Amino acid sequence: MDKLRKYFPIFEWGAEYSSKTFINDLITGVIVTMMLIPQSLAYAQLAGLPAEVGLYASIAPLIMYAIFGTSRTLAVGPVAVGSLMTAAAVAPLAAQGTPEYLGAAIALALISGLMLIVMGLLRLGFFANFLSHPVIAGFITASGLHIATSQLGPLLGIHIHGENLVDLVASIIGNIGNIHLYTAVIGVISLIFLFWVRSELKPLLIKLGLGERAAGMLAKAGPVASLVTAILVVWILRLDDSGVTIVGSVPKGLPEIAIPPFELSLWTSLAVPALLIAIVGYVESISVAMTLAAKRRQRIDPDQELIGLGTANVGSALSGGFPVTGGLSRSVVNFDAGAETPAAGGYTAIGIALTTMFLTPLLFFLPKAVLGAIIIAAVLSLVDVGALKRTFVYSKADFAAMSATMLVTWIKGIEAGLIVGVALSICLHLYRTSRPHIAVVGQIPGTGDFRNVKRHSVVVDPAVLSLRVDESLYFPNARFIEDAINAGVAANPNIRHVILECAAVNHIDISALESLESINKRLSDGGITFHLSEVKGPVMDRLRRSHLPEELAGKIHLTQYDAVASINPELARQTLEWNRG
Amino acid sequence: MDKLRKYFPIFEWGAEYSSKTFINDLITGVIVTMMLIPQSLAYAQLAGLPAEVGLYASIAPLIMYAIFGTSRTLAVGPVAVGSLMTAAAVAPLAAQGTPEYLGAAIALALISGLMLIVMGLLRLGFFANFLSHPVIAGFITASGLHIATSQLGPLLGIHIHGENLVDLVASIIGNIGNIHLYTAVIGVISLIFLFWVRSELKPLLIKLGLGERAAGMLAKAGPVASLVTAILVVWILRLDDSGVTIVGSVPKGLPEIAIPPFELSLWTSLAVPALLIAIVGYVESISVAMTLAAKRRQRIDPDQELIGLGTANVGSALSGGFPVTGGLSRSVVNFDAGAETPAAGGYTAIGIALTTMFLTPLLFFLPKAVLGAIIIAAVLSLVDVGALKRTFVYSKADFAAMSATMLVTWIKGIEAGLIVGVALSICLHLYRTSRPHIAVVGQIPGTGDFRNVKRHSVVVDPAVLSLRVDESLYFPNARFIEDAINAGVAANPNIRHVILECAAVNHIDISALESLESINKRLSDGGITFHLSEVKGPVMDRLRRSHLPEELAGKIHLTQYDAVASINPELARQTLEWNRG
Repeated sequence: MDKLRKYFPIFEWGAEYSSKTFINDLITGVIVTMMLIPQSLAYAQLAGLPAEVGLYASIAPLIMYAIFGTSRTLAVGPVAVGSLMTAAAVAPLAAQGTPEYLGAAIALALISGLMLIVMGLLRLGFFANFLSHPVIAGFITASGLHIATSQLGPLLGIHIHGENLVDLVASIIGNIGNIHLYTAVIGVISLIFLFWVRSELKPLLIKLGLGERAAGMLAKAGPVASLVTAILVVWILRLDDSGVTIVGSVPKGLPEIAIPPFELSLWTSLAVPALLIAIVGYVESISVAMTLAAKRRQRIDPDQELIGLGTANVGSALSGGFPVTGGLSRSVVNFDAGAETPAAGGYTAIGIALTTMFLTPLLFFLPKAVLGAIIIAAVLSLVDVGALKRTFVYSKADFAAMSATMLVTWIKGIEAGLIVGVALSICLHLYRTSRPHIAVVGQIPGTGDFRNVKRHSVVVDPAVLSLRVDESLYFPNARFIEDAINAGVAANPNIRHVILECAAVNHIDISALESLESINKRLSDGGITFHLSEVKGPVMDRLRRSHLPEELAGKIHLTQYDAVASINPELARQTLEWNRG
Repeated sequence: MDKLRKYFPIFEWGAEYSSKTFINDLITGVIVTMMLIPQSLAYAQLAGLPAEVGLYASIAPLIMYAIFGTSRTLAVGPVAVGSLMTAAAVAPLAAQGTPEYLGAAIALALISGLMLIVMGLLRLGFFANFLSHPVIAGFITASGLHIATSQLGPLLGIHIHGENLVDLVASIIGNIGNIHLYTAVIGVISLIFLFWVRSELKPLLIKLGLGERAAGMLAKAGPVASLVTAILVVWILRLDDSGVTIVGSVPKGLPEIAIPPFELSLWTSLAVPALLIAIVGYVESISVAMTLAAKRRQRIDPDQELIGLGTANVGSALSGGFPVTGGLSRSVVNFDAGAETPAAGGYTAIGIALTTMFLTPLLFFLPKAVLGAIIIAAVLSLVDVGALKRTFVYSKADFAAMSATMLVTWIKGIEAGLIVGVALSICLHLYRTSRPHIAVVGQIPGTGDFRNVKRHSVVVDPAVLSLRVDESLYFPNARFIEDAINAGVAANPNIRHVILECAAVNHIDISALESLESINKRLSDGGITFHLSEVKGPVMDRLRRSHLPEELAGKIHLTQYDAVASINPELARQTLEWNRG
């Protein structure tokens, strides 16, 4: 039963479902539906897919997540970055508008869903940790600007293309003479309206007497309002006859079960993009879920979340949708509107299902320019210039990883940006740990403590070299430490003992073990005794499995004081008792 | 002048050169020449190149290294693993025996030499650290077996081929009926003789009255003796007419200046193999050089060594040779024979030059089977089964990296083996640090020390959760720590304070900083105060550049005792003074 509850969290919250919970969830479901309709249409456009695919991706995935997900407030569905990544993955394989393009997008959702499920079952969630914060922040900011630029095409009524920001900008400049006046007017007015709604409407409504929370909720209906207005304007003035691009006929009715194409070559070429979409989507989703859960002292199970998102994507694929994940803005609305259980997501799914059954004919005259404006307004909030500055001040290495991710994303495209970012953060980490801080330490008079000779006035026995390494000993720094000890000994012919203080050493791998063995051997050949001190319990447990404890010319001492006292007891004791009378 | 000495170490030892040094170096030069002639011919055969190319690679590189290298005893030239890697890199580009094959091998030496020089000038030697000991040991062992197997072809007089061990073995089995009797007899007798020389000759010579050192030196002449004997046997019996493959005519005279082919496509396809050859050669060479230098308390400059090996390879390329590096066995002989300066290498170069000028006609009847036997005898000593066992006992993760390197090398080939090995060691390191040891700590009565509650009987305030993380805080474990703290707090509703003891934290990157900020925020939202303690100096310096110190609900305490005492002074003091009366 515990196992069942673990894999089907629905049994946990389902058991305590009450009519009060139902009302709260239902109200939330209605509000999120109003927000999701324009977003799902817009993100389908961003992914280069027909409008109905966005709606399909907003039904089954929400139901699957309600069953398998562990967050009570996460709102799953199409998101901006995922849609862009879908377009980037599928575009090289088929032309937009063809059944092959749609089939590849569906297959992408299926593959990435299956990958998430497998990672969840094998408890491989730690893979997502390899995306460091600077890489994610750089990637999301870069993608936001890339997406906004790409939507200048529909917004201005020009055809632009390019897999990276540089090409897109060049394409816009080349097409600047082809801007379609009516389209551009609709697009720009929608954009101004959306920005106005975001910053001005809520204070205005409060001034008009509405409560804070109601005003906030109503302000979220801005995109729906712009959508309805634009449809009416285009329909009444018949602007489509003047060349304004409209969505056109959207099939009516619930999605049918889709069988994604099973071709080995297709699956092979989608494997890497599917993995990246899975991991980026998971990272985005889990951080939103954890933040919201902590506010109510609820818990998220990171491995079960992989299964929740995985089944959501498989559900999307089998109902003809494209990759989905938990989105920030909708989840926050879901939380604020009072969602108490994942059932709220289920009610949203019913809302979208009703839309596909009855409202799609109304979308015929919807101008694509408005969808472009909705996307631009949504993604510009992803651009986080403050993070760049904060990172620069805190760490140049992290800043390098962040800016490299951004630049490569803009110049070479989003996949390359992510891969370069991850590789660079790993290399920078290895580089940093490859030259750890090594201090020569001496005894502080009046104490048994040992500190850096450069920062404190300490007592040092001229025949003893005591070094403290501030890092675990492992392959990237094994040779560096050998070299540091050789250099320390070569610089001072009086030295008869070398003590390595290991208080900051959390791990010794076999490369470092072999380095320690060869340091010991070389020092012995030169008549010098090698000691270790302050080795931690788990590290010592492991060392006992090697020959080092027997081979060591000196001993492994419990404390640095013991080590020094075993060599020159008189000096150590005098220093310890200095000034005590 | 110091700069000059740094980049041209020859000025340092050249200034103190004496006639005694000269005699020692000269004797060493003669001994190493005797050893290098058969090896250079054999390794050329292993690389699929004409015999003279091996000799050419043993002249200019030695002189270049004598000028630019920092080791006084390293013997540079063709080595087994480098020759195998050359064959693997060049074979896909051209057929063996063609000028294109030779040109590609020469270009490979040039590219890898230039890469080494650039790495040396930019002080990028740390890249070599990414090759962990288990990966190198696995790779060398796997290559040794691969090389030995590949030489069963010439040894038995059959044509075999394959880029990996599996194919080679299949090829041998398929050709078992084509074994050439005379060739196999020569090969097997040579092999038995070489093994006998190695294990039995030295004790025998000592028994006959020779000194230990002289006996050892003489035993190194085994390969030359087998070479001379085999040439005589084949010549007298004219076994070449019976189908024994011989080296044939080797051009006489010094190498001419070679211009390696400059084609972009060739250079592009050689880039990755050249980098791998450069790094593997460097790692092999530097560990030999450091071991020998330490025995005489000399120093090796790792960055200058890159330049020394780089110029040696460029020298090899420009004189028509293939990639070279510092080899273990020849260097040890060089050291034991009494080489005092790199001039010994120069005298060896003169010895090989004289060989190319006068002795090449004598090599006409040399059977290739003997070269195969020399290679097999040399490389089987590379196979280190003990390392496998030691690694298995010490660490399963390191053992996994080692066996993956070996298996992939055997199944997919040497490049794939190396790359998989490096990638796996990095992933395993990241995985290990991604779930660090986190201990709940409490105060030991009678002291101000704090230890793991599971291992010691300690005093804990029920309102305080004190956690010690035994790892630096950085992106692979940032989320793990967030989750551990959330779990600790969710499990115990009495907790009002969380203290994170950072004594083992050597670094906090921006991902971990943002995690700490969000932990602080979430705990605050739940009415819990978050503190840090025992933050090290360099880590604290960096934290001061962030907003954490101001935003933190609690404080950053110097010691864990201070932290606890600031929350519950009475309990902390009572525990400290427990049993003192």
